[in-house]
Amino acid sequence: MNQLTIGVLGGMGTYATIHFFEQYAHVFNAEKEWERPRIIIDNRCTMPSRVRAFLYGERREQLVEEMIESIENLVKSGATKVVLACNTSHLFIPEIMTRIPQYIDSIVNIIEVCAKKVIDDQIKEVFLIGSEGTIESRIYQNILESQGIRCVVPQKEQYTNLRKCIESVKQNEYSDEIREIFLSLINEHTACILGCTELPILYEKYSAGVNCEYIYDPLFLVLNQLKEEFINEKNINIRSI
Amino acid sequence: MNQLTIGVLGGMGTYATIHFFEQYAHVFNAEKEWERPRIIIDNRCTMPSRVRAFLYGERREQLVEEMIESIENLVKSGATKVVLACNTSHLFIPEIMTRIPQYIDSIVNIIEVCAKKVIDDQIKEVFLIGSEGTIESRIYQNILESQGIRCVVPQKEQYTNLRKCIESVKQNEYSDEIREIFLSLINEHTACILGCTELPILYEKYSAGVNCEYIYDPLFLVLNQLKEEFINEKNINIRSI
Repeated sequence: MNQLTIGVLGGMGTYATIHFFEQYAHVFNAEKEWERPRIIIDNRCTMPSRVRAFLYGERREQLVEEMIESIENLVKSGATKVVLACNTSHLFIPEIMTRIPQYIDSIVNIIEVCAKKVIDDQIKEVFLIGSEGTIESRIYQNILESQGIRCVVPQKEQYTNLRKCIESVKQNEYSDEIREIFLSLINEHTACILGCTELPILYEKYSAGVNCEYIYDPLFLVLNQLKEEFINEKNINIRSI
Repeated sequence: MNQLTIGVLGGMGTYATIHFFEQYAHVFNAEKEWERPRIIIDNRCTMPSRVRAFLYGERREQLVEEMIESIENLVKSGATKVVLACNTSHLFIPEIMTRIPQYIDSIVNIIEVCAKKVIDDQIKEVFLIGSEGTIESRIYQNILESQGIRCVVPQKEQYTNLRKCIESVKQNEYSDEIREIFLSLINEHTACILGCTELPILYEKYSAGVNCEYIYDPLFLVLNQLKEEFINEKNINIRSI
């Protein structure tokens, strides 16, 4: 038996990681504590900026080294699956995997999980919001477009507004302006990927004003996938007794 | 420079640990992510019951071994201070310390921090609520009474009600009955120690009905102490540049 223990490389940012922790408790609802899987969270908020490392190469080597160190710590501490609680950080996975290939099966790629769900839902066109790094890297677009799904992204002029939304969550400060910006962004579309781990917090906060029909929250999808695996594994173990 | 990284042995229970994570973000409020200290949380909700291990010796050895393993993992992963996010778990610290004495300075004893604050506030009489394990062990009473502070505890008949309060948080299910029980417990006194990490959640939820003047939340006090040390350390580093 290889019982699920979830490892989380978080702190990118802190409120997004707290939100993920809350979602975990909700998804793995339990009458008794020990019915949930253990979760280990490294809220390494001191790491260099993922967006700046990608766009300008700023402190890139330090970032990759710290990510590798945290992933190794999580696995050594018992994590059987590791989630990077930041979409942009996934841009460094190929480099990380060349350096610690033994952990390739441990990492749950939240972008792939999300794209798969969009594909399974037979969505024809999806709007992607996220950091400049995530959008400019085309990490979502490449997967989706290879499956014939149109992936619409914000205009460059909208990047400032997007950054305002993300920063408001990071600083835990909200305003009517943020509400308006966020809703005007997602309500133009029928399907939307919340491609930055700060954005699901805005979505929950302002959900009464949301008209967009299909909302994709990568971390929430990952938790549901892990729960399914967790239940299947438990059933297999029960049957094998 | 030995920059603060907080390690947390949590999951005892999960909602109490989430609450601690939220309190951390609040206490270490920051305009920029990296201004906060890193925090690593092992939400090991699968551990045996601390109360049953203390009262009946049930799975005691397994509990102590898992606590030691998690503390070691946290320190090896970078934690400079380790917080056990459960009052009852402190009953096993003497045993743990005989087995990993090298970590004695890393562990922040939340019970000692809390008792020190009660002493500093020159409180003459304080009411203690918590798990049966914490109350019966006299861990708080011994420290406080040695300083001439009277520590009043609930009657044995009230244990069932106390357990209901703690369980309601663990299951994230609240009711008017819980509100009444909790308020009737703490409003009989002018000073109260919330000696179980689930109880501060009830305190926040029902604070409008609280008359008790001095409320002691051990984890919140620990976070404030760590923040003070964090700021002093930063100032020393700035002065030494």
